[in-house]
Amino acid sequence: MSFKIRLLQIADLQQESFYQTLSALRPIKKIADSLAEEIFNDCQKRGIETYVVLDKEKIVGTLRLLFESKFYHQGRLAAHIEDVATHADYQGKGVGRVLVQHAITVCRARACYKIILDCSDRVAPFYQKQGFVLHENCLRYDLDND
Amino acid sequence: MSFKIRLLQIADLQQESFYQTLSALRPIKKIADSLAEEIFNDCQKRGIETYVVLDKEKIVGTLRLLFESKFYHQGRLAAHIEDVATHADYQGKGVGRVLVQHAITVCRARACYKIILDCSDRVAPFYQKQGFVLHENCLRYDLDND
Repeated sequence: MSFKIRLLQIADLQQESFYQTLSALRPIKKIADSLAEEIFNDCQKRGIETYVVLDKEKIVGTLRLLFESKFYHQGRLAAHIEDVATHADYQGKGVGRVLVQHAITVCRARACYKIILDCSDRVAPFYQKQGFVLHENCLRYDLDND
Repeated sequence: MSFKIRLLQIADLQQESFYQTLSALRPIKKIADSLAEEIFNDCQKRGIETYVVLDKEKIVGTLRLLFESKFYHQGRLAAHIEDVATHADYQGKGVGRVLVQHAITVCRARACYKIILDCSDRVAPFYQKQGFVLHENCLRYDLDND
């Protein structure tokens, strides 16, 4: 299949397919336009880049990149991959690979020195096939459990 | 010992003790003021918050927080802890604990739903003692190895 990839646009927030795609991570219904735009704008402000993969007009994949400038790398950026999701109807069709390869291309263009991501044992081999290596542990503190 | 904690200020970038502290992560010499300010400003722009622990005027600890607004948590923020370091002369004096507890307090005030960090097996027990749990794997792609 041939997919297009581009940055998430504000109009995408009205597409059911965006939320269907995110639902691969955890179930989510389409959210109110005003809240969706608030989240979109907050991410823009922070320089967070969300990409979407399209099959014609339908959103079938998404990935988010966070960047941070490091004091100990002469200001070079470290990138964090977050929220990689493929629409349930498009699993196993290479959407995830398109997303990760695009993220690597973007990060190389920004002269990032590394890309970091957190994932379960189940999906680690997918990333390892694309050149990622097991590096450290991801620990979590759940503030809703306080 | 009694420590003060506050946000990194632009004047701190001229303190050798800031770089001595970061050197606990990887050796770094004091960098040119102009570059240091560029990094500082880039982080400000992205809403990245760097905290420092002080013993009188000396910087003896640091920790960085990144935030991202999540579509599937009604826009609530996820926080990432990065670059936790204690000055070599202050190891074992509770500086790390002050930093992590402060980060938890800040994240709770921002209504974050989770805090994520990546760390080695060696330091995982330090975070586990403070309520973090082993969650996933951290994978890394090194762009300088291409």
